[in-house]
Amino acid sequence: MRIGILGSGQLGWMLILEGRKFGYEFNVLDESRGPAARIADSFYPVSEFRKFVDKCDYVTFEFENVPVEALEYAQSQDKLRPGLDSIVIKKRRSLEKKFLKDNGFKIADYTITDNFEDAVDQAAKFGNAIIKTSESGYDGKGQLHVVDGNYSGDKLEGQEFVVEKFVKFQYESSIMISRDIEGNVASFPPSFNFNYMGKLRHSNSPLEAGQMSEIGSRLVSRLNYVGTMGIEFFFDGRDYLINEFAPRVHNGGHHTLMGFSISQFAQHVLAVSGRNVLQPRQFTPSGIVNIVGREIDDQLTTALLANEETILYNYGKTPRKGRKLGHVNITDKTIEGLRSRISKVEEIIYKGKPELYF
Amino acid sequence: MRIGILGSGQLGWMLILEGRKFGYEFNVLDESRGPAARIADSFYPVSEFRKFVDKCDYVTFEFENVPVEALEYAQSQDKLRPGLDSIVIKKRRSLEKKFLKDNGFKIADYTITDNFEDAVDQAAKFGNAIIKTSESGYDGKGQLHVVDGNYSGDKLEGQEFVVEKFVKFQYESSIMISRDIEGNVASFPPSFNFNYMGKLRHSNSPLEAGQMSEIGSRLVSRLNYVGTMGIEFFFDGRDYLINEFAPRVHNGGHHTLMGFSISQFAQHVLAVSGRNVLQPRQFTPSGIVNIVGREIDDQLTTALLANEETILYNYGKTPRKGRKLGHVNITDKTIEGLRSRISKVEEIIYKGKPELYF
Repeated sequence: MRIGILGSGQLGWMLILEGRKFGYEFNVLDESRGPAARIADSFYPVSEFRKFVDKCDYVTFEFENVPVEALEYAQSQDKLRPGLDSIVIKKRRSLEKKFLKDNGFKIADYTITDNFEDAVDQAAKFGNAIIKTSESGYDGKGQLHVVDGNYSGDKLEGQEFVVEKFVKFQYESSIMISRDIEGNVASFPPSFNFNYMGKLRHSNSPLEAGQMSEIGSRLVSRLNYVGTMGIEFFFDGRDYLINEFAPRVHNGGHHTLMGFSISQFAQHVLAVSGRNVLQPRQFTPSGIVNIVGREIDDQLTTALLANEETILYNYGKTPRKGRKLGHVNITDKTIEGLRSRISKVEEIIYKGKPELYF
Repeated sequence: MRIGILGSGQLGWMLILEGRKFGYEFNVLDESRGPAARIADSFYPVSEFRKFVDKCDYVTFEFENVPVEALEYAQSQDKLRPGLDSIVIKKRRSLEKKFLKDNGFKIADYTITDNFEDAVDQAAKFGNAIIKTSESGYDGKGQLHVVDGNYSGDKLEGQEFVVEKFVKFQYESSIMISRDIEGNVASFPPSFNFNYMGKLRHSNSPLEAGQMSEIGSRLVSRLNYVGTMGIEFFFDGRDYLINEFAPRVHNGGHHTLMGFSISQFAQHVLAVSGRNVLQPRQFTPSGIVNIVGREIDDQLTTALLANEETILYNYGKTPRKGRKLGHVNITDKTIEGLRSRISKVEEIIYKGKPELYF
């Protein structure tokens, strides 16, 4: 079985690490050679997308902003999974919002405008709001928090803006959910997410919340989705509002690499290759700490790997402030014990000063 | 961190799959390109062993029968882990027996001779015995079962023979045990092994047996061992007799890939690279079924991966009767449930006729 991955980042890297078990071959296409390219069976530059698609039995993606001509060609060859629909919706935030609203999913109030000044006026009406560019935003980029019409930082550049009313959430959470070509759906237990400066800092699972699996199941079925999807939620004290979804494996599901009968990555590879998804079983409370903006040198590696029930994933990327360079998987017998281990690992990585790295 | 692996078989392949998480680089040396060579950062033919060793920070092995000059050169550069002692003892069965006996470990009665006819006479004295060639035997090769002086099959060729009294065991079992350069020892829970025609067919863990960890701990400490070791036992109803040990990761520990806080492979990579071993926690009953002599085609892959709590490891080797081509990891909430899943998976692979494949 030959799988093609559009994009060569760490998500592709983990898809390969997990998917190799099945004896699959992995080929990667990207503009430059990221972590996945270094362990793939072959690497193709973007210009060779036809050759790449022709070589693969199925093609998936690990990043939304991949060249549309490669996606379209893979779709035309009936090899793209998930299909073009979900990524087209996702590549434009206004389409995602509209899709979710039209299909009856609960989301924050929002408006759409093509003018930044108008976006600020709309935000002022919401009182507390976020302006997001409709395209190319992730990990807190292309976003601006506006309170009573005031904001700090540069104005956003873009063709279209989504103005979202700020949700006074009790917490943020996510689920990973998978669907196969026969329409079977398998949901991982939800996880609690702690986001910091627009990026996930740590997560832990399980989180009691039946509603999220039910919402996710409706969403992947509505999209006729094939593969694993990440869905982020705000819990406002009553409902789980969808913040956004990612039509791919997702940082919110890295904890499934440890303490589960199957990972989000293995599940995605199964679905993409036309096999059935499996109901995951969580063996033990499980979570992660992201390593952001902090070089994973020999000393840090030693300090992290000296902890029981702790596995390091080092993506091998060049350090840069705000960049995700790896993560640490952690388990424990209890959720309280897990939280305590997470705090300890955060202290080892950030020494009480995450603001220096995020 | 650059790790060198002598040998390119499936054990090396799994060392790389597990060790890549830490951001390590893996280089492989072998006569031909096995599974590990296909996913390594680089491959060296045996003739280039000096260049290979010079490139690596540490060198380990995944197979006993690697060229001794490569082992010796790595040892001379202070890079070989585990050290030369344990592999020298292991490469000659008579030395292994003598070492175990001299150090007070319980083993089956045995004698050593350099003449096959004499070996048969000695075996006749034991009544029920096994003759083994002293070198190059594994997976039941180079062995002959002799009952009252009679045997079927060809006489064994060799320079030296070990004649072992047959142990009327209640069951066979094994442990994986690891030791780091500081002398810390971490043992995985023992597993029950079902061997068939000299090869492991399935295993399940945990097995209650404190004695084995204690014996293993004495053995790795006595050898000043660094890395993960596999030790096979016979339980005769009273004692655990050491059948043999392997100074490397081992088929008897593949179940640690699923349902554990750390695998035998990750543990080995930690120890070899000078880091501390961790106390493994077993989350749930866990076992494997070996896929021997049976092509892992698309149909078998689908049939195996359709089972909950089941992960396939396909080594990508060419099928041949008696050859290990892959294994299936299986977990369950209970040991009874696990045994039932194991039977189901065996039925899928062998359809009630393992003798056609082993």
